Amino acid sequence: MSQSYKQKQNVTYYMCDRTQQLTLSMLVNLLLNVSENHSAELNRQESIIREMGFNWIVLRYEFIVTRMPGYKEEVEIETFATEYNKLFTYREFIVRDDDQNKLIEVKTTFALMDNENRKMARIPSELVAPYEAVFSKRIRRNSKPHEVDLVQAVQTNYSVRYFDIDTNQHVNNSKYIEWLLDSLNASFITAHQIQHGIITFDKEVKEGDTVTSKVSQRSEGHLYTDHHILVGETIHASASFRWNKR
Amino acid sequence: MSQSYKQKQNVTYYMCDRTQQLTLSMLVNLLLNVSENHSAELNRQESIIREMGFNWIVLRYEFIVTRMPGYKEEVEIETFATEYNKLFTYREFIVRDDDQNKLIEVKTTFALMDNENRKMARIPSELVAPYEAVFSKRIRRNSKPHEVDLVQAVQTNYSVRYFDIDTNQHVNNSKYIEWLLDSLNASFITAHQIQHGIITFDKEVKEGDTVTSKVSQRSEGHLYTDHHILVGETIHASASFRWNKR
Repeated sequence: MSQSYKQKQNVTYYMCDRTQQLTLSMLVNLLLNVSENHSAELNRQESIIREMGFNWIVLRYEFIVTRMPGYKEEVEIETFATEYNKLFTYREFIVRDDDQNKLIEVKTTFALMDNENRKMARIPSELVAPYEAVFSKRIRRNSKPHEVDLVQAVQTNYSVRYFDIDTNQHVNNSKYIEWLLDSLNASFITAHQIQHGIITFDKEVKEGDTVTSKVSQRSEGHLYTDHHILVGETIHASASFRWNKR
Repeated sequence: MSQSYKQKQNVTYYMCDRTQQLTLSMLVNLLLNVSENHSAELNRQESIIREMGFNWIVLRYEFIVTRMPGYKEEVEIETFATEYNKLFTYREFIVRDDDQNKLIEVKTTFALMDNENRKMARIPSELVAPYEAVFSKRIRRNSKPHEVDLVQAVQTNYSVRYFDIDTNQHVNNSKYIEWLLDSLNASFITAHQIQHGIITFDKEVKEGDTVTSKVSQRSEGHLYTDHHILVGETIHASASFRWNKR
C-alpha cells in the first residue's frame, strides 16, 4: 500500500466563481499544493527535484465530480501515488466533505522533464521510492478526450499574460483550464456543472504565444463539450467534459 | 483601540509569479480573505451584509512594501478597522514574516454599496459598531494616483473573462491588478519590484466589457509607473507604483 497524505483546506472567496463554487482551475492549484506538501514530507519537494535537474509535469487529469465544494466549506484532500513505470507516475486525489463524503476523485499522470533539454526523462527509482508506489512495467492506456467537431466548433483567442507563466517558465496548468472553460459562453457555464472531465497536455505553451481555444458540443445520452488548445495549427492540450444541469 | 484580527498564511506555488514571490493580486485576495474572517468573528460576514441589502466595495488600496513574501514562506496577516465616517470605513493590514518583521502595510478605503440601486449607501453605525473603529466626521483626503502621460503611454486591451466575475457579479479587484501590471513588459516586471502603490477604483467593470490598460513611466528620484483602466473613454481605475531594481 502506498503512502497517503491528507490536508484540510478552506474554500475561500478568491477560489470560487460567481456561483460560489470552487473553480476547476483552483481545484487543480489546491491539488498540486497538497501533492507538493506530500513530497516535501518525503524529502522529494520541488526544489530537490530541480537540484537533480528535473521537474514534474502533469500530462493528464481525469476528474470525477459528485459535487464541487462551495464557498467557506472545509474539505479534506487526500493524495497517494498509485503506480509508476519507467516514464510515468500515477497519482490520485480524493476530496471529501466534513462528513467524509467523497466529492471529487482525480486521477493524474505525471512525467519527469529534464530541465536541460526540456524532454521527458526516465524516472530514477530512488526518486520515487519514498512514495511506496508499485512499480509496473505496463504503461497504462488511458482514455483520451473526444475529438472536437471542427464544423460546429467555436473558437476564442487568448494571449499569454505575464502572470500565466510560473516558476518553471511555462504556462501554469490551471491557466489552460481557464482558457478551456472561458471559451464556452457564460450562460452555458452558469447553467451546467461538470460531472466528468479529461484533460491531456501535449506541448508547453510559452511566453509570447497566442492560443486558440476551440470547443464543440455533443449529446450522447449526456451533454459533452470537447476542446482543443492550439498554438497555430498545433494542438497543445485537449479536453472533454460531461455536464449536467444545475 | 479597535478590534484587531490575525491569521497565519502559507504562501503556496499558485500564489507566486515566476520569481517565486507572492503576486500583488494574490496579496489582495489574501487580505480580503482575512478581512472576511475578521468580520465573520464579529457576526458581520458578507452573507449578513448582503441580507441587509448591502455589499462592501474597495475604493482604494495603498501598499507600502518592504519585501514581498516568497514561495513556502509563512506570514502573519493582521487587520483592523481604524476609522469610519458616514460614507467610508478605513481598514489597515500588516503582513509580517516569521520573526515579526513588517513586510507589507496596506491601507484601504471601503464603501457600502446598496445592492438595489448599485450606489453608495450611508453606513449604519450598528453595522460597523463591533469593529470598534473610531467615528470621525472628517472624510480623509487621500493622495491619488499620478496622471498617465498620454503622449508616451502604451496600451493593451483585455476582454473580461468568465472567471473574472465574482459572486457580486462584477469583476474581482484582483483582476484589475493583473491588467495593470500585465500591460508593463515582462522584462520590466522581472527586473523591478514594487515599493509603493496606490490603486483607486472609480467604476465597476462588467461582463462583456473590453478594458484598455494604459501605462506610462516617470522618473522623479525614483522610477514610477502610472496607470489607467478604461472602458471606452471612461476611467474605471487608476494606479501609480514606485519601483526599485531587484
